[in-house]
Amino acid sequence: MAEYLDRIKSPADVKKLGMIELERLAEEIRERLIQGVAKTGGHIGPNLGVVELTIAMHYVFDTPRDSFVFDVSHQSYVHKLLTGREEQFETIRQPGGLNGFMLRTESEHDSFGAGHAGTALSAALGMAVARDMSGGSEHVVALAGDAAFTNGISFEALNNMAAQTKRLIIVLNDNEWSIDKNVGAIAEYFHKIATNPTYVNLHDRAAALVEKFGGRAASHIVHKAEEAAKGIVGRGMIFEEFGLNYYGPIDGHNLPLLIETFKFLKKQNKPVVLHALTQKGRGFQPALEKQKKFHGLGPYDPETGETKPAGQKTYSEIFAESLNKLADRNDKVVAITAAMPNGTALDLFRPHHPTRYFDVGIAEEHAVLFAAGMATKGYRPFCAIYSTFLQRAFDQVVHDVALQELPVVFCMDRGGLSGDDGPTHHGLFDISYLRGIPNIIHMNPKDEDELQDMMLTALEHNGPSAIRYPRGTGPGVAVKDYPVALEIGKAEVLQDGSDVAIFALGAMVAEAEKLAKMLKAEGQSIAVINARFAKPIDAECVTKYARRCGVVITMEDHVLAGGFGSAVLETLNTAEIETPVVRVGWPDNFIEHGKPEALREKYGLTAEAAMERVKGMLKRPVGV
Amino acid sequence: MAEYLDRIKSPADVKKLGMIELERLAEEIRERLIQGVAKTGGHIGPNLGVVELTIAMHYVFDTPRDSFVFDVSHQSYVHKLLTGREEQFETIRQPGGLNGFMLRTESEHDSFGAGHAGTALSAALGMAVARDMSGGSEHVVALAGDAAFTNGISFEALNNMAAQTKRLIIVLNDNEWSIDKNVGAIAEYFHKIATNPTYVNLHDRAAALVEKFGGRAASHIVHKAEEAAKGIVGRGMIFEEFGLNYYGPIDGHNLPLLIETFKFLKKQNKPVVLHALTQKGRGFQPALEKQKKFHGLGPYDPETGETKPAGQKTYSEIFAESLNKLADRNDKVVAITAAMPNGTALDLFRPHHPTRYFDVGIAEEHAVLFAAGMATKGYRPFCAIYSTFLQRAFDQVVHDVALQELPVVFCMDRGGLSGDDGPTHHGLFDISYLRGIPNIIHMNPKDEDELQDMMLTALEHNGPSAIRYPRGTGPGVAVKDYPVALEIGKAEVLQDGSDVAIFALGAMVAEAEKLAKMLKAEGQSIAVINARFAKPIDAECVTKYARRCGVVITMEDHVLAGGFGSAVLETLNTAEIETPVVRVGWPDNFIEHGKPEALREKYGLTAEAAMERVKGMLKRPVGV
Repeated sequence: MAEYLDRIKSPADVKKLGMIELERLAEEIRERLIQGVAKTGGHIGPNLGVVELTIAMHYVFDTPRDSFVFDVSHQSYVHKLLTGREEQFETIRQPGGLNGFMLRTESEHDSFGAGHAGTALSAALGMAVARDMSGGSEHVVALAGDAAFTNGISFEALNNMAAQTKRLIIVLNDNEWSIDKNVGAIAEYFHKIATNPTYVNLHDRAAALVEKFGGRAASHIVHKAEEAAKGIVGRGMIFEEFGLNYYGPIDGHNLPLLIETFKFLKKQNKPVVLHALTQKGRGFQPALEKQKKFHGLGPYDPETGETKPAGQKTYSEIFAESLNKLADRNDKVVAITAAMPNGTALDLFRPHHPTRYFDVGIAEEHAVLFAAGMATKGYRPFCAIYSTFLQRAFDQVVHDVALQELPVVFCMDRGGLSGDDGPTHHGLFDISYLRGIPNIIHMNPKDEDELQDMMLTALEHNGPSAIRYPRGTGPGVAVKDYPVALEIGKAEVLQDGSDVAIFALGAMVAEAEKLAKMLKAEGQSIAVINARFAKPIDAECVTKYARRCGVVITMEDHVLAGGFGSAVLETLNTAEIETPVVRVGWPDNFIEHGKPEALREKYGLTAEAAMERVKGMLKRPVGV
Repeated sequence: MAEYLDRIKSPADVKKLGMIELERLAEEIRERLIQGVAKTGGHIGPNLGVVELTIAMHYVFDTPRDSFVFDVSHQSYVHKLLTGREEQFETIRQPGGLNGFMLRTESEHDSFGAGHAGTALSAALGMAVARDMSGGSEHVVALAGDAAFTNGISFEALNNMAAQTKRLIIVLNDNEWSIDKNVGAIAEYFHKIATNPTYVNLHDRAAALVEKFGGRAASHIVHKAEEAAKGIVGRGMIFEEFGLNYYGPIDGHNLPLLIETFKFLKKQNKPVVLHALTQKGRGFQPALEKQKKFHGLGPYDPETGETKPAGQKTYSEIFAESLNKLADRNDKVVAITAAMPNGTALDLFRPHHPTRYFDVGIAEEHAVLFAAGMATKGYRPFCAIYSTFLQRAFDQVVHDVALQELPVVFCMDRGGLSGDDGPTHHGLFDISYLRGIPNIIHMNPKDEDELQDMMLTALEHNGPSAIRYPRGTGPGVAVKDYPVALEIGKAEVLQDGSDVAIFALGAMVAEAEKLAKMLKAEGQSIAVINARFAKPIDAECVTKYARRCGVVITMEDHVLAGGFGSAVLETLNTAEIETPVVRVGWPDNFIEHGKPEALREKYGLTAEAAMERVKGMLKRPVGV
């Protein structure tokens, strides 16, 4: 079916194709992406944007000898198709299948894994310096979107680059979009370059020349492009000030031009930036029309781009709607996102409170500090940052917010297993990394309505707090018109009992209720407690039930090491209570991607698995 | 004695002085700094550099209505002297005295605390936006050293600045030094501006004009300076590209010029950067001659600058010397510091292995990613980063190093209580934030020789590891010629016993031995175990002694929540052992600055306090 793509068993096969065949290959790849991701879901838009770039890179360079470092690496599908993984492509993001990001253990062509943004330049510089020290001649190419330059690490890398290596190629894949449209001075700066009439003119001439002369014209064009780019922006080019040579902007979909340009860049004796303009979603009309939707999504109709109608509201949506309510009544409430208005659903907040909405770019550290600054002036910032991304701002949470007891609220979406995205996106560490920090309150809602109550609780608390809630939908309970504040550090006893006490956190409350039913069926008297707070833990409730019951069970969608169960152990230790505790949670290894239910089953985070572990520990014999 | 300084009870008193009196005040402040810090120790160099800047700021602005945000804020001594804390100045960094950094709880004039670098611009932007939203007219002034611009957060803030406020004043205090001389493209860039002949000429003219006309000349000079600066660097000015107005460079010690410039900047309707050139250590010859030494140090002779001769080698020095040995034998060993060659003692490594030494600036995130990149190419990077600063790179430790199982070694200096520097510098959280992360090995040496052994252990281990060691000196044991690798996850039994088992980590091993003596004197049989590994914990050893003994005691220089004692509880829980455990460590609050011994006593981290807690739990009656 796919005449050329079927032949590509490794990047060596790409090099065998002529220019017309390469163009045909690009078409086939687009078709494959559109059809394949329609079934699996995934980052279709970004990958359609880098088809020619990736082909050209594999045509000119030679992985795994040369190293490609992709920023975030959600745009690595084309790379996967060209590096021997075409036949497995239908398994991408599926259980046991290909990962949706670069993964070192998946292929020798994936030289550096990612999932979080802004890491490519630094990692690539490390590789380049290592290559230089070893006297190697291989190339290191970093591919980073324009959004990566809203992140501070990219600048830290640029600051070090020119002094540390003479050979490093950075491809700035500029489509003016990260997940949402980029914000800030850098985005504006790139836009200014890309829309400059001199470039537009150059671009047209370049296309004509390539058409006329093919490869032979390209080096001439590149030279012209370089000159023109310098003419456009003068010696003030940000990259030039960092000591790099800047080339571009060039058309990121012009294969011959890209190939000749890479051949030219290979020979440079200075770190270089190639500014390539691409179109996110190119070749798929629905994706071009709805860039934000088609950044990354679930399965869709490959003809129309239609997705299944949204059903029940997600936790993210409940969060945003609740924040609207809070902001309606309290004009000090502000919302901050680090380039995730869609993922966090803050795009539902923005239209209602446009002046109180802040998207700061992929800049989690700045987001938290910005919130801290606002908090000193009486505002109540809600920072909506995924659990895994808040790791980015850990020091600011400690050093700036918690130490100064500032009332910043961290709304940690995707707390717990994230599913398809895999280990870079699971939010399984936030209890352990926050629990040691004084002054922090750490809340976990059992359902949507409780999320809303916890948000009000956080708002009314004059200090820092964090709320973690799962990806996707919850139990789907009705949400009150306006929330009610909870008592801080107070658990909720859902059912009383005297043989076994189950303390469950957040999403695991449902599993706890299932386990309670199973234990009841065996004649046991079961207490089910919605713990609500990982910190401060409800010591009174924990000790009371531990004294009363023969076994305590803790359940959390979090690693066991340092997690909620660990906090229960500490509480019992302090109270000198020796009741046995069975801790249910994730083991001490990184969890692969997959369906949450299947993974929970595999790793024993189910009522059934807990039942097996508890059976032998019951004081009252089973079945009596 | 100090005619003018004695009169300054608040910033309002600064405003009452005439220009000649202000100059005299500056002299008195310098004298006070030199004499005062001679006794207390502290950041003398940076404060001598900002005397005129701080006076001018308080002359023109009006704290606490206006907000000053000082980056790192170790240069806030002058500010403290001018804001009602002159009489307490001799208590700075002393137990119960003034903190060495800005502290919100210490004064209403300290609008934002700090201790870690690169936070000022972001926090100030948050304040400015809050001010704008509230319709306020007060000013926000951020003072940041040139080194702050090697940190990515500053760029994240710059990226957002122009779009979010029209009124924010940034003072770039450029002395070309952070703690060590700055590195990278930005430092070079600033240097290029400062040494441009046009500026030097302008500077001379400005000085002459001020001398001639006083205040009246200043606005003219400022205007000229602005023009000249633009002439020097063209429209490519990095700050201008971020949408800010840039003014300078100006002489940061010319009081009239600074005052007139701030008056001018107050009226601007765009965020502005004032580039002020200052001299670190100005007015104190020893500090000018030895910039690095006089950045921050202990007590010294105020006449000569002599400090007490160094005695016993510090852990940092042992670390550097050991790394030299490892690097001598293994050419893949490289060392990375984030602008702390002196503090980490890597300046002892650099001369021996200059090509394998990397100072990346105050860029902890980049440092770890750079190390990860090198590790993929077969190198063995040792990242020397203080425990508290590694919080900055937490996500890179998780997402880039641990997840990819790359052999990067984190050498966490200042692990445990840091002492005089206070809560921003204590390293009390690294077990809790790292213990939840799979694949990480977390080691704690009991003495200098074991530090060296652990470094070899880390080098020989094909995966990530972390070693935490205390600030200052250790027990002072002899260090072997070449280290021996330890068995990973294996504790060291220092003495066997059967009544009480004490598991101690790192610096607490000495305290454990003291406790053991006290318990022995009461007729108890005591096992003392040097735990060595917080992760993986030696489960075999822990369970063995817990089964044998009546009480287990854990001792750690770390918070209890999620710490080493918590790991012991988890281990016993998994093994279903119910032996009582007494956990000794820091409580769940931020610990103030002070002498470590005094603080350990206050918070119960001593053998004596442990003895009190354990007494009632002993199986064998005391004294039998």
